[in-house]
Amino acid sequence: MEHRTNRVRAARDDALLDLILENIRLLNVYTGEIYPAEIGISGGYVVRVGMPRITGLEPKKRHDGGGRVAIPGLIDSHVHIESSMMSPAGFAAAVVPRGTTSLVIDPHEIANVMGLEGIRYMLEATRALSLRVFVQAPSCVPAVPKLETAGAEFGPQEIAEILSWDRVIGLAEVMDYVGVVSQQGRIREIINVALERGAIVSGHCPGLVGPDLAAYLVGGARSDHEGTDEDELLEKLRNGMSVEGRISSYSDSTGVLGNIIKRLGELPPNLVFCTDDRFPQDLFRTGHLDFVIKHALSAGFSPAQAVRAATLNAAAYHRLDELGAIAPGKRADIVLVDDLDAFNVCQVFIDGKLVAQDGRICASQDDRNGIETGNTVVINREINAEDFLIRGRPGRQVERVRVLWNHPDYSKTVEMRDIDVIDGVLDVSDKDYCLVSVIERHGRTNNWSKALIGGLNLTSGAVATTVSHDSHNLVIVGRDANDMAVAASELIRLGGGICCVDGGCVCASIPLPIAGLMSSEPLSVMAAQFDKMNQVLRRQGLNFRQPISPLLLMTMPVFPSYAITDKGLIDVEKQELVSIWADEP
Amino acid sequence: MEHRTNRVRAARDDALLDLILENIRLLNVYTGEIYPAEIGISGGYVVRVGMPRITGLEPKKRHDGGGRVAIPGLIDSHVHIESSMMSPAGFAAAVVPRGTTSLVIDPHEIANVMGLEGIRYMLEATRALSLRVFVQAPSCVPAVPKLETAGAEFGPQEIAEILSWDRVIGLAEVMDYVGVVSQQGRIREIINVALERGAIVSGHCPGLVGPDLAAYLVGGARSDHEGTDEDELLEKLRNGMSVEGRISSYSDSTGVLGNIIKRLGELPPNLVFCTDDRFPQDLFRTGHLDFVIKHALSAGFSPAQAVRAATLNAAAYHRLDELGAIAPGKRADIVLVDDLDAFNVCQVFIDGKLVAQDGRICASQDDRNGIETGNTVVINREINAEDFLIRGRPGRQVERVRVLWNHPDYSKTVEMRDIDVIDGVLDVSDKDYCLVSVIERHGRTNNWSKALIGGLNLTSGAVATTVSHDSHNLVIVGRDANDMAVAASELIRLGGGICCVDGGCVCASIPLPIAGLMSSEPLSVMAAQFDKMNQVLRRQGLNFRQPISPLLLMTMPVFPSYAITDKGLIDVEKQELVSIWADEP
Repeated sequence: MEHRTNRVRAARDDALLDLILENIRLLNVYTGEIYPAEIGISGGYVVRVGMPRITGLEPKKRHDGGGRVAIPGLIDSHVHIESSMMSPAGFAAAVVPRGTTSLVIDPHEIANVMGLEGIRYMLEATRALSLRVFVQAPSCVPAVPKLETAGAEFGPQEIAEILSWDRVIGLAEVMDYVGVVSQQGRIREIINVALERGAIVSGHCPGLVGPDLAAYLVGGARSDHEGTDEDELLEKLRNGMSVEGRISSYSDSTGVLGNIIKRLGELPPNLVFCTDDRFPQDLFRTGHLDFVIKHALSAGFSPAQAVRAATLNAAAYHRLDELGAIAPGKRADIVLVDDLDAFNVCQVFIDGKLVAQDGRICASQDDRNGIETGNTVVINREINAEDFLIRGRPGRQVERVRVLWNHPDYSKTVEMRDIDVIDGVLDVSDKDYCLVSVIERHGRTNNWSKALIGGLNLTSGAVATTVSHDSHNLVIVGRDANDMAVAASELIRLGGGICCVDGGCVCASIPLPIAGLMSSEPLSVMAAQFDKMNQVLRRQGLNFRQPISPLLLMTMPVFPSYAITDKGLIDVEKQELVSIWADEP
Repeated sequence: MEHRTNRVRAARDDALLDLILENIRLLNVYTGEIYPAEIGISGGYVVRVGMPRITGLEPKKRHDGGGRVAIPGLIDSHVHIESSMMSPAGFAAAVVPRGTTSLVIDPHEIANVMGLEGIRYMLEATRALSLRVFVQAPSCVPAVPKLETAGAEFGPQEIAEILSWDRVIGLAEVMDYVGVVSQQGRIREIINVALERGAIVSGHCPGLVGPDLAAYLVGGARSDHEGTDEDELLEKLRNGMSVEGRISSYSDSTGVLGNIIKRLGELPPNLVFCTDDRFPQDLFRTGHLDFVIKHALSAGFSPAQAVRAATLNAAAYHRLDELGAIAPGKRADIVLVDDLDAFNVCQVFIDGKLVAQDGRICASQDDRNGIETGNTVVINREINAEDFLIRGRPGRQVERVRVLWNHPDYSKTVEMRDIDVIDGVLDVSDKDYCLVSVIERHGRTNNWSKALIGGLNLTSGAVATTVSHDSHNLVIVGRDANDMAVAASELIRLGGGICCVDGGCVCASIPLPIAGLMSSEPLSVMAAQFDKMNQVLRRQGLNFRQPISPLLLMTMPVFPSYAITDKGLIDVEKQELVSIWADEP
């Protein structure tokens, strides 16, 4: 109360202001206007916004905004820090200079590896950053319990515990929309726990429209970031769903949303922005929410509309009452941009302190707080090259095999192929397909599943990763069993990461020692490592926009239409395991 | 959870819908569009909104909307039911047919009479109504403790208790803005209690702009309904304050807000509507929020803007997540209007049930719930005519007197007059001024203060009221001491109300037995009683738009510039008592 009293006094010059931010033009997210103003700051809060006063005490400090436009700090409505493969500190250093001052994170990936400890790690690691981080409790750990082995399983009890922690403000993307609309399984109980505690329940429902969309909303989910179709997104907006316009490393819905804005002639109050998953090289080259806003502007948003979506609307959705606007009583999270159309972020203030300038963060970020994740790659069995080979059944010289087939949009089907059995093992000398292994790496079962995968165009060597959604087991794809063994062993040695092996040698590797998902290296190093990795991967034949993506996504039992987990080949539509042998179910 | 599951099933036709509202055009408050739709309802909630389905189970019931426009139920963001002088049931019957389905009430008046019991009464009396009533804890009971005697005094402890009760969602209008900006007195502690509990703190700050407005916002207040000046209201909107556009019985800010909307080219998200105080005859003749919307439309709001202000924006301000829109998961509070420009409300649904049609409420309203307020007019002294006279000081034949002077806008000043002392008492035979008495009626002190008042033009008889803001003591104004005694005795006999006496006879009276503030009579009876009362008051010379208003407002120690309370004459600017004798302080 004393602090508030001090701020009230500063507002009317009964006490010194800490800072006056002067010579700026204010983009007012309430009225949509842009006008010259100055901002008085005390105790980390905005306490006065208006025209320069003739009289008044001299503040402790003045900051000349150089005529730039002041907007509220940007709020990412839904993001997985883990997808950047950077630690929270590295992520902060990467995105704060881009104008992002608040994140609503879903620590879904680390939760699938480390359970409650993973979420505690993220809370600790974000406690002292120059970046506000709010957490949503991951709703689907693992995505499909019976079809994969994750490092943890969350039921209603775990969700209730997480929701009781400080800075946890909601339930994260309810990917199990089938469970919601059918009211089957654990998700109904999990949502109930969240709603009973007054938590916002965020959603994830690609393509959902009509009665099923209505059922999903009635079931408690409030938002979606997956939609990319214009009719679908308009229907979601009309139904009161918070649509989280997104530019991830996989997807961009801003163009479609621009069409909707132009059609409506206004910004719906339930439109916000998010980035969801962005690779380090994308953060490095194109940016974060600043990039989303730039695209939105090209797509037909006015600057006030784009900024409002990324600030006031996001704060309203997540009930972050002190954020999202530059007004008396709000936190002094302020971004100065030189030109609204170009949207270049020049300076960033959080709690009234200059934290980034000219693309660089000012203070070094500490996310250690004395806690460590330890080595999370726990495989209690030997890794031998021959174990990566797939044996034919006794007496067969040819096997008709279900080959998992990757398509350019990373969806997967199954193709039936007749494969020769040579020396007892399936012959993969055909360039069309190669070997894949998924090894449970949480020390729980050490399951090891194997299959053939096509559509990758891998021409030689092997690639391995401990990042593989959503259970993040160890995935190894290869043309050569020996290279696969080398790759797997290298990642076990590193405690997680991504590596490429060719001719028995490690050609490129990105160590990700934090939960096998993240690195403490800064953005520029991560981007350089990725550039090198991608060069190698392309040389090995992987020609996707993000060459590693097929490996990260092939393990998802909720992504159409087939997947491979540590338990085996999965028919996603039927939600069941299938044999690799065509003549078995 | 079972109920929600049933609703989810109904949304996708796995269970029967209770009702389909068909053949309507939907005003979508998210997108601003109007389009043909049908609304599926289950368990009191909207579970589906969209075009008619080809297939699907036949619902339990269908309702033909006759091509009318469906809008969400209207939400009054700030209202005192007591100002209607009707009980909550009578109020519900009066406003629900007008399209109002939710109120955020400030039971400030009954709290000043009955304390916590008064708020409990309002909660009980609104529990079973066909109207959703949310309560804010009155912040200023009484308005100025040292200058008046109310029936109760609320400090932080009482506020904390009220905030713990069901349906109490915030702290009501913080009228003591001086206390907030100076951080002096009880209001600072009261606001702190509210903020600690996450309650929304509503405001009241006529004319406040500049650093003091900023200080008021930083101090915790969020809204204002008092402003009527265009620059002031624009400044409030720009500062993120929720501006509650108001048409009360005293004031109308919709015209000015219309100018602002036209200037901005859009509706700010922080603009909502309220009615604050409306007399029964105003509710009867012109309406409630429907009247506010009609005025807003004339002032330049589009229908979508006006409706959004009265629904979605209000729900967002008060965090009423299930209200303010017609969308899956929201309460089925729906209003059908025949024509958006004329805005005639035809049918009203609450929780999916038809509760009003063609201007009449369908179900009888019960607000008794077995609780009674009892007789709250407790005066433990005799009322004799001569006690209303004002004695001159010994030996004086003329007294120079501070005469309280009422102006057409109900503001009051003091005029100095030389008054003859005849037979020991001040002579009021001059038609310019008359006698006024204020008698404490809560049985606490039985204070009896007296003064002269001018500017009323009362030509004969006496008028008395137990409604007198904010402490609601017994006020009697008269030219004749005997008539004053008759009027006071009549109100004591009635247990409160308003009455006019002339020539020793009661010419008109409105019994208000509920806390001396409200009646159980329905709107038509109340309007007729008021019409008769006003006729008599006008004959007695009171020619204000609402003839009784000066008596209701002359006791307010926070209304410029002078007042009279049970303690005596008040200098509002100095916040102190002054003698009626000009030669005494």
